[in-house]
Amino acid sequence: MGSESEECSENEVILGVDGGTTSTVCVCMPLLPFSDHLPDPLPILGRVAAGCSNYNSVGEDAAKDTLGKVMEEALSKSGVKKSAVRAICLGVSGVNHPKDEERVLSWIRDIFPANVKIYIHNDAVAALASGTMGKLHGCVLIAGTGSISFGFTEDGRKARAAGAGPVLGDWGSGYGIAARGLTAVVRAHDGRGPQTMLTSHILDSLGLSSPDELIGWTYADPSWARIAALVPVVVSCAEAGDQVANEILNNAVQELASSVRAVVQRLSLAGEDRKGSFPVVMVGGVLEANSSWDIGTEVINCVLKTYSGACPIRPKVEPATGAALLAWSFLMKEILAGHR
Amino acid sequence: MGSESEECSENEVILGVDGGTTSTVCVCMPLLPFSDHLPDPLPILGRVAAGCSNYNSVGEDAAKDTLGKVMEEALSKSGVKKSAVRAICLGVSGVNHPKDEERVLSWIRDIFPANVKIYIHNDAVAALASGTMGKLHGCVLIAGTGSISFGFTEDGRKARAAGAGPVLGDWGSGYGIAARGLTAVVRAHDGRGPQTMLTSHILDSLGLSSPDELIGWTYADPSWARIAALVPVVVSCAEAGDQVANEILNNAVQELASSVRAVVQRLSLAGEDRKGSFPVVMVGGVLEANSSWDIGTEVINCVLKTYSGACPIRPKVEPATGAALLAWSFLMKEILAGHR
Repeated sequence: MGSESEECSENEVILGVDGGTTSTVCVCMPLLPFSDHLPDPLPILGRVAAGCSNYNSVGEDAAKDTLGKVMEEALSKSGVKKSAVRAICLGVSGVNHPKDEERVLSWIRDIFPANVKIYIHNDAVAALASGTMGKLHGCVLIAGTGSISFGFTEDGRKARAAGAGPVLGDWGSGYGIAARGLTAVVRAHDGRGPQTMLTSHILDSLGLSSPDELIGWTYADPSWARIAALVPVVVSCAEAGDQVANEILNNAVQELASSVRAVVQRLSLAGEDRKGSFPVVMVGGVLEANSSWDIGTEVINCVLKTYSGACPIRPKVEPATGAALLAWSFLMKEILAGHR
Repeated sequence: MGSESEECSENEVILGVDGGTTSTVCVCMPLLPFSDHLPDPLPILGRVAAGCSNYNSVGEDAAKDTLGKVMEEALSKSGVKKSAVRAICLGVSGVNHPKDEERVLSWIRDIFPANVKIYIHNDAVAALASGTMGKLHGCVLIAGTGSISFGFTEDGRKARAAGAGPVLGDWGSGYGIAARGLTAVVRAHDGRGPQTMLTSHILDSLGLSSPDELIGWTYADPSWARIAALVPVVVSCAEAGDQVANEILNNAVQELASSVRAVVQRLSLAGEDRKGSFPVVMVGGVLEANSSWDIGTEVINCVLKTYSGACPIRPKVEPATGAALLAWSFLMKEILAGHR
């Protein structure tokens, strides 16, 4: 393997970027030598966070600016020159089509010379890689404010389910769960639905005195994240035995499991007998196991009924690191292919 | 009854205003003599339409301006002076609390002298009166872009259900039906839901070539009415036998019936034995009987299972005329009370 030391100089680095709607993170890692085992912990030289880089939200100029800045600052923090960059992987929210990839690629090509390998993906791909440590295989389920299920096969096919926003039925998302909690309060108040503990708990948490005030509160600010912030209230009511809150969470579990199953089926990730093993990477606040009512575990239990080989993974590294590992594994593949 | 001819001069008029989020309509009617029977057709002296007068949407100045203008123009069109106005009833969208009523009242008081009787209500009240010909009793169900159920008892108690907007679960509204139609297309496309005729019919009607484009279409313009405009597509798919579309409509029927039942129960409109007779006024595009899949009739059939005395009414006059009849009946009550 002497040739690798020629191709991978010790001072070379890779960059991983997780460009989301809420924040953008870049990590800089040394170019690890080819090996089946990654060092633990991973050697992160520098890490920088900034704001939104979804160009659908902030526009192309601001998105390009943010992406350029986090990479530049991560390099500076790592004490590394731009010329040391060997490969970059960006997982950027809003990248859904080849033309989106080309657009972001053209921005990054303006900054780095042609010999730098650049890989552009959707941010769900970085999240998947954060669980599989750089291997692009399996399914990732992200459930934060929004929700999406994204899957890849080893031969490069991909599929997604959900991720279409609240109007188009992302009912398992944090927004979906919280909006149903709010709806349950309105329905209990006007007589359409059963009484629920959610009424007092949600009103308390919002500092409101009557369900009548919920309409004004809801439409005063259209931000999805503001609604989704009520998920812990729904979870705590469910834990206290409230039936309405339990129904909302059970419904969300079914929704999320259904989006995973749809991806697994379309990609045949579990093989024809549906028993093959495949990773399911779980990311986002809704799936974090911080309560006795553990939505993530329930989703997996639900998926396991159909696909007994589903292997849940809660990532130990962040998506930006996943992107860096992805850049690394793509580069290694190219180097190995060049040696054949 | 000689005293009435003294109190109701032949040249006096009443104004009825329906102030909605989409449009504002004012009608001018002669002050009819007290009688148990209204003339058919009603003598409308003038009618004028203008834009939105919901001050939550356009601001107080614009709302006040619009309301003032439609009344002035209706009088001018009727060839009647302002001094001939005896009573006005305004049903204005966005009026939900006594302080809202006071606000609108203060605007109208600026225009008309103190002897003019002014009555301010929510626009649902004008819709109810358009079905009951000025009697404030029963339940009105409005289902257009949004949906609301509003009820009144003869002794002045009132209650509402739904009308909280799409985030808070107005699933029986035009917006709710259409959003579920769009969601069904996304779910069929990503493998979470069954195939449906809605896919080709909705894409055709929007001029899109793939369900992938629906996300962009949906979030490009947040207007609820734009989504709700797809209701006829869902109805035609249901009529053609599509199961998914039928489920969406059946669900909407349950939702709308549940909002009527909630109001009827809270107000005991059907009496303690649940068998008493009461009007259910049906208003709005979703409830119009223009298809073989008749949502309005299905809603009534559903309400009748619980309340056998529900009497459906599809108004023959518009809500502005309902408001004028309401002004007339309020005034008659006051005159009669003054004679006791």
